[in-house]
Amino acid sequence: MIALTGDRPTGRLHLGHYIGSLKNRVVLQETCDQYIMIADLQALTDHFESPRTITDSVLELVADYLAVGIDPMKSTIFVQSQISALSEMTMYFMNLVSISRVERNPTVKAEIAQKGFNDSIPVGFVCYPISQAADITAFKADIVPVGDDQLPMIEQTNEIVRKFNRIYSTNCLKEVKPRLSHVSRLVGIDGQAKAGKSLNNAIFLSDTSEAIKTKVFSMFTDPNHIRVSDPGKVEGNVVFSYLDAFFEDKDELEDLKKQYRKGGLGDTTIKSKLNDTLQSLLQPIREKRAQLSRDFLREICHEGTKKAQRVASDTLEEIRDAIGLKYGI
Amino acid sequence: MIALTGDRPTGRLHLGHYIGSLKNRVVLQETCDQYIMIADLQALTDHFESPRTITDSVLELVADYLAVGIDPMKSTIFVQSQISALSEMTMYFMNLVSISRVERNPTVKAEIAQKGFNDSIPVGFVCYPISQAADITAFKADIVPVGDDQLPMIEQTNEIVRKFNRIYSTNCLKEVKPRLSHVSRLVGIDGQAKAGKSLNNAIFLSDTSEAIKTKVFSMFTDPNHIRVSDPGKVEGNVVFSYLDAFFEDKDELEDLKKQYRKGGLGDTTIKSKLNDTLQSLLQPIREKRAQLSRDFLREICHEGTKKAQRVASDTLEEIRDAIGLKYGI
Repeated sequence: MIALTGDRPTGRLHLGHYIGSLKNRVVLQETCDQYIMIADLQALTDHFESPRTITDSVLELVADYLAVGIDPMKSTIFVQSQISALSEMTMYFMNLVSISRVERNPTVKAEIAQKGFNDSIPVGFVCYPISQAADITAFKADIVPVGDDQLPMIEQTNEIVRKFNRIYSTNCLKEVKPRLSHVSRLVGIDGQAKAGKSLNNAIFLSDTSEAIKTKVFSMFTDPNHIRVSDPGKVEGNVVFSYLDAFFEDKDELEDLKKQYRKGGLGDTTIKSKLNDTLQSLLQPIREKRAQLSRDFLREICHEGTKKAQRVASDTLEEIRDAIGLKYGI
Repeated sequence: MIALTGDRPTGRLHLGHYIGSLKNRVVLQETCDQYIMIADLQALTDHFESPRTITDSVLELVADYLAVGIDPMKSTIFVQSQISALSEMTMYFMNLVSISRVERNPTVKAEIAQKGFNDSIPVGFVCYPISQAADITAFKADIVPVGDDQLPMIEQTNEIVRKFNRIYSTNCLKEVKPRLSHVSRLVGIDGQAKAGKSLNNAIFLSDTSEAIKTKVFSMFTDPNHIRVSDPGKVEGNVVFSYLDAFFEDKDELEDLKKQYRKGGLGDTTIKSKLNDTLQSLLQPIREKRAQLSRDFLREICHEGTKKAQRVASDTLEEIRDAIGLKYGI
């Protein structure tokens, strides 16, 4: 079973990534041939004016991966822009998708609205689902772990797969299945719907012990829970959202929630619990991260990218064969 | 001075190509470093469902080139799909052009209307001017010979060049100048505005002597010029259009026109003149063509493509450097 996952390199990874995907990848690598793509080409589609954001993040991402337990002997970590076959495959796939189809993609539509491109939506951005189809099919992925907002991407890929195989009478491309992750999205420490690098409301895997503590103690709780004795709300309380995600002892957590609702449990107490939890989760990650030299990270990237180049080139050869672009030259 | 020209490989070349561009290329190669691209990738954007049309035409095109006098020692003949740097450059350029900009391109708009894509306009087709910008800039072309319907393509390329150089603080891309050809378009033998492979109304460079004669004698003249003694019209008369393009003795041609207008000059006579003219133009081309083995044509393609790969890869390296996509991996 082959799995493809990845991240746009636009900053260090945070707890939202950890709970939403990294943790899952550490499990997945035990049973799957897992490819982890650092999607710098894709990140360029909406960061083309600030490429340093991307290029400065690539090795940081590799450090985050290794620190959380992704094992380069089990997972292939590679950099998208170094795999030229992906661009070429994208070109062939672009002929199989209509302009109205890409403009109708719900994920892309939502992102366009969110990013405020105004009237100047880059062609590259609208086309990134086609480029994703190249990424997925190049490695013959069987599954792609996704949130349900990403399902239209999988659909687009499979449409291309079916059309390509039909037109060129081949079966060299493989349909892919989404592996839905049921983890709810981690909110920002300010209670914003999404923890994000750009929103500066996230706890990063590489944050110092001090930074973690500061962030936890600045978390949004229940504005009406003023005195310790006041009854408090658990829903929409960021501290409890994080405890739900990271506190291991679910029985104790239920007791805490009950007590908080009733009154008599202070914010400082629950924040201390969360701080302890996150410190003991992140300390080993941070320590492992600190041991990784830039040279070692480059070496991991190099090896993974070399393997990915080989695999993607083989698929590209099959694609060219199917279209007939062999001239014996 | 570097020049880039090329053709979509969708069939053998005809007299329209000869007079509109091939003849000019034979001259251009004496003073320019000339690249001639067989644009199979571009042809796929509107022939993706019939790739054989394209792949069967590639070596035919090379044969046509050599037969008319293009010298592979002076011109670099290469196959677009074999230059992967072009796809990668296209990906970077796609971020710099908005969807509304590509949809506004007058050449593309006209072609869309003409091709009857209906509502299903392939992304690849709309984007081919971006891919052309990659072709032109990859070889650092100073000039591109074009008809005036192609000027919007040059404009799009130069917009990309300026934007790329500005955003990435580089001067690795070069603006290009159109070299306008003032040859009027050759009409079809049936009087249709355009001689075209698909319209089956063209005289091909590889046509047999017999086929040429048949086509010349089936040409549309003046429907009111019934008897030899009738006065005839020269304007809109296909035979005279071809004589204008190919008959060398301009004084004699003026006399013929005068006589035809007055009456007393039969269609058979002018068709014979034209037939003689075309036979003596095309006979050496056809004979040279017949001597070219498939292996030799492949060898020419191979050598040219190898050189083009080197040049385009160098430009791609500069582009990656400028964006910063070097990770030391």
